[in-house]
Amino acid sequence: MAARCQLTPVLRRLARSTTEVSRQPLLRQSLSRHTVRHISTSRPRLFQPTAVSQKGELTSEKYPDIQRDSRFAQVTPEHVKFFKDVLGSESAVVDGVTSDAADDIAPFNSDWMNKYRGHCRLVLKPGTTEEVSKILKYCNDNMLAVVPQGGNTGLVGGSVPVFDEIVINMSRMNKIIEFDEVSGILVAEAGTILEVADQFLASKGYIFPLDLGAKGSCHIGGNLATNAGGLRLLRYGSLHGTTLGIEAVLADGTIVDDLCKLRKNNTGYDLKQLFIGAEGTIGIITKVSIQCPQRSAAQNVALFGIESYELAQQAFREAKGQLGEILSAFELMDEGSQQLVRDVTGNKSPLEEKYPFYCLIETSGSNAEHDAEKLQSFLEDVMEKGIVADGTLAENETQIRSLWTWREGITEALGHLGGVYKYDVSIPLKELYQMVEDVKARIDAAGLLGDTDEFPVRAVVGYGHMGDANLHLNVSTRRFDERVEKVLEPYVYEWIAERQGSISAEHGLGLMKKKYIGYSRNPTMVGLMKNIKNTFDPNGILNPYKYL
Amino acid sequence: MAARCQLTPVLRRLARSTTEVSRQPLLRQSLSRHTVRHISTSRPRLFQPTAVSQKGELTSEKYPDIQRDSRFAQVTPEHVKFFKDVLGSESAVVDGVTSDAADDIAPFNSDWMNKYRGHCRLVLKPGTTEEVSKILKYCNDNMLAVVPQGGNTGLVGGSVPVFDEIVINMSRMNKIIEFDEVSGILVAEAGTILEVADQFLASKGYIFPLDLGAKGSCHIGGNLATNAGGLRLLRYGSLHGTTLGIEAVLADGTIVDDLCKLRKNNTGYDLKQLFIGAEGTIGIITKVSIQCPQRSAAQNVALFGIESYELAQQAFREAKGQLGEILSAFELMDEGSQQLVRDVTGNKSPLEEKYPFYCLIETSGSNAEHDAEKLQSFLEDVMEKGIVADGTLAENETQIRSLWTWREGITEALGHLGGVYKYDVSIPLKELYQMVEDVKARIDAAGLLGDTDEFPVRAVVGYGHMGDANLHLNVSTRRFDERVEKVLEPYVYEWIAERQGSISAEHGLGLMKKKYIGYSRNPTMVGLMKNIKNTFDPNGILNPYKYL
Repeated sequence: MAARCQLTPVLRRLARSTTEVSRQPLLRQSLSRHTVRHISTSRPRLFQPTAVSQKGELTSEKYPDIQRDSRFAQVTPEHVKFFKDVLGSESAVVDGVTSDAADDIAPFNSDWMNKYRGHCRLVLKPGTTEEVSKILKYCNDNMLAVVPQGGNTGLVGGSVPVFDEIVINMSRMNKIIEFDEVSGILVAEAGTILEVADQFLASKGYIFPLDLGAKGSCHIGGNLATNAGGLRLLRYGSLHGTTLGIEAVLADGTIVDDLCKLRKNNTGYDLKQLFIGAEGTIGIITKVSIQCPQRSAAQNVALFGIESYELAQQAFREAKGQLGEILSAFELMDEGSQQLVRDVTGNKSPLEEKYPFYCLIETSGSNAEHDAEKLQSFLEDVMEKGIVADGTLAENETQIRSLWTWREGITEALGHLGGVYKYDVSIPLKELYQMVEDVKARIDAAGLLGDTDEFPVRAVVGYGHMGDANLHLNVSTRRFDERVEKVLEPYVYEWIAERQGSISAEHGLGLMKKKYIGYSRNPTMVGLMKNIKNTFDPNGILNPYKYL
Repeated sequence: MAARCQLTPVLRRLARSTTEVSRQPLLRQSLSRHTVRHISTSRPRLFQPTAVSQKGELTSEKYPDIQRDSRFAQVTPEHVKFFKDVLGSESAVVDGVTSDAADDIAPFNSDWMNKYRGHCRLVLKPGTTEEVSKILKYCNDNMLAVVPQGGNTGLVGGSVPVFDEIVINMSRMNKIIEFDEVSGILVAEAGTILEVADQFLASKGYIFPLDLGAKGSCHIGGNLATNAGGLRLLRYGSLHGTTLGIEAVLADGTIVDDLCKLRKNNTGYDLKQLFIGAEGTIGIITKVSIQCPQRSAAQNVALFGIESYELAQQAFREAKGQLGEILSAFELMDEGSQQLVRDVTGNKSPLEEKYPFYCLIETSGSNAEHDAEKLQSFLEDVMEKGIVADGTLAENETQIRSLWTWREGITEALGHLGGVYKYDVSIPLKELYQMVEDVKARIDAAGLLGDTDEFPVRAVVGYGHMGDANLHLNVSTRRFDERVEKVLEPYVYEWIAERQGSISAEHGLGLMKKKYIGYSRNPTMVGLMKNIKNTFDPNGILNPYKYL
């Protein structure tokens, strides 16, 4: 594993120009909703089994400590009649109250991993903001709890019912309303699928300032509601900066028209910010206005082998300095995570030797030659300085995709190897990887980590958006073993809290992390948040049992 | 004014590399606090006289409809004793209650234009967050109204008392607390002067993601409190995106520790966003955590002559597309504004002929040669296409400064020519300049606009941050004439409201625009804002009489 001061030649290339790169997942098909199976466990909130059955346990059974709030009414045929009168079209109501619609309702009751499963009997699909307003006003007046639902691609159980809450699914509100080709400002309905919006923008030479693995299913309204982070945050910043306006409906049916199409508007509190990341608990976002950047003409991807986390930080700093305005991704993967990908796919590593760390760098710019020159010069510099031990540059779109699979394929590789404890966390960059080492040492010290079947833990790996100080810590297991859980928690949360990290970097709170907010937010802040919730939704009908 | 498809050669040059450009104002000295004089007017809220006296009218006399809120207590010697006990150091209290401190207090009572003038008798300068907390708790318990004050560089009267509110001046809380050289995250106290922070960052190779004419005086806490926009917004986005965390003290003394140093933290409502742009009405920001970008090694500036606003929009679009990631400013100036600068300075235009519009373009990038090549190629393209009629590129730092004076010198030129009605507004880009034309036509039709002394209006000019759709409409007058005001208002606000623009793009509401929020925000939103205000400051002691 000695440092080699030259590039692995096989993929070496310096420039590539394309208006779009579509990344294909390594093993996507095998994780579809219909092929996954369930392994029952008594601690489902922690342990994420490889696969769960379609007829999985109900959330209310898994979490017996959560009780249905008796203030909420049960849905009656009379309620259903009202909603059908409002929504008109039969297809806009999935009615399991006055008819048997179990099969039709099932997909709305559970998340894509089948980890959370409610038992609502009514799904409403409004087509206009006014319909959302009428629905919510009626629900508020009649104490009917609701769950706003976008593309239902979340990971923390935020977009499915816990009990019998009515699902308000936004998929019919999917129109692009307007786009200003000079300013790059897009206005669209909340149910617009992210990839649809991005493809529309591509045709205009623009790009949606957010990219996600789930882009083919997730809604832009859901992206805002969960303050989605993803792959472009390093370059384009968070949705708190790029969102210009929203239209939303409050619990009592009030329509909040803040659909501003201006970059600057200093007239009062920026209320829309509260809805971004509120996970549907203070209102339902119905329309979005967002500032979209010009699409880059050129893209380059490089993968590096690095000898230590200290050097990875140096590489990041050099990349920021030398690649500056064209740097669009800086991803970190440890050798453990890459070993898993090799094991599952059988693919050969793009580098000749193994290194403790790998960094994937992406650049996006307006001039392919310039970008290539910068990347080449950066690469020579970091290799000369001994920061990077080896590296490879993709020569074409296929190779770009191939390099990305070493980063994007980790989640799926983990899914194929057994159960996994997953933590999506933010930690100040200096100590980011220390968490993986500390957790690994702790599990090892408990005698739980090893290469053979007698050990419940196969591997402790870390990877993530290093550019955003966002680590994905994953503990890959061979089977459920309660000792693993005891070693992990509350240790992991305490470790994060001590370093003022975040227990949820980009996945949100939902049902899964509702209990743990105290590790990242102090009681004063949680108290203020509860005041906000009560101000906007005094009856608590919006997405109950979650978030706070 | 025929299109000339070649560059004015005198300044032609293609690349310049510098780590920093300090822009010097054209006529800054003549506008300093001590030389300005006052012209009394019965309509001070609209008309901004050239100069105002140090002993200007009190705000309470200018605005007789604003009454002191009788719920607020008068400051007593007993109160002063408490504050002196808390703050310790004598220099931390400017006491005009138990002693004669009129001269010492005067600068805290009025804004830098001397347009607003309160009559407070007590200024407190806390040195720590705990001191701010003790002060506010005491004020809240004793119904003492306060005005949070940063660098006091605002333009809407937000940072000075209206009556006898206690000034809480943040200048002593001016420490840089920490900086992470890998992530670029800066944590500093709120009273840190923007330029000090930026110079500190320059020494580390970073840049503060905000730049303002007032940077030598304004505080970063004040920047956040007013959601300052300025010159770098086009490139680095708004403070809602770059701010990672704040520490603030609520009206009742509660310290809100949200000093997050993470780019991603999805754990509950993003409360800090409410404080950004709240103008000190829900709490006092005491510390700031902000994401700073890498400083660009190279900078280039070009000035273009353009035949129509339609073509200026095309130039903007081409600049975004071709200069992409290196574009850092796109400023618009009309010929009227440039004529004023020529008249006042006697300087010769950098272009050989006159054009209806001028655009100033700045690029900032990591590679001077690449940037120059992009700029050159862009310039050739837009001239070939007939979008730009003439252009000039700065060859060195002096020329860069010189070109910037044609944009930054407009405000000061206007100040030298008589009174001026100023509007800082956002308008969707397509109609941005239409406002200037409509206002000019309206004033002309009323017989008020002309070249000779009989006409009260000398010129109607427009300029601003085109990249942000932020227009500065200025009506330059020879003398106060109430007919001008009647022609202007409410016409201007109605014009903006019809196009869903903003009556305050970046200057905020303060006292000046408190009444006009309804032109940019609907009653539902204003109602929600008032709920927020009441939730955070139920006694209303924070910056009363302003904002909402």
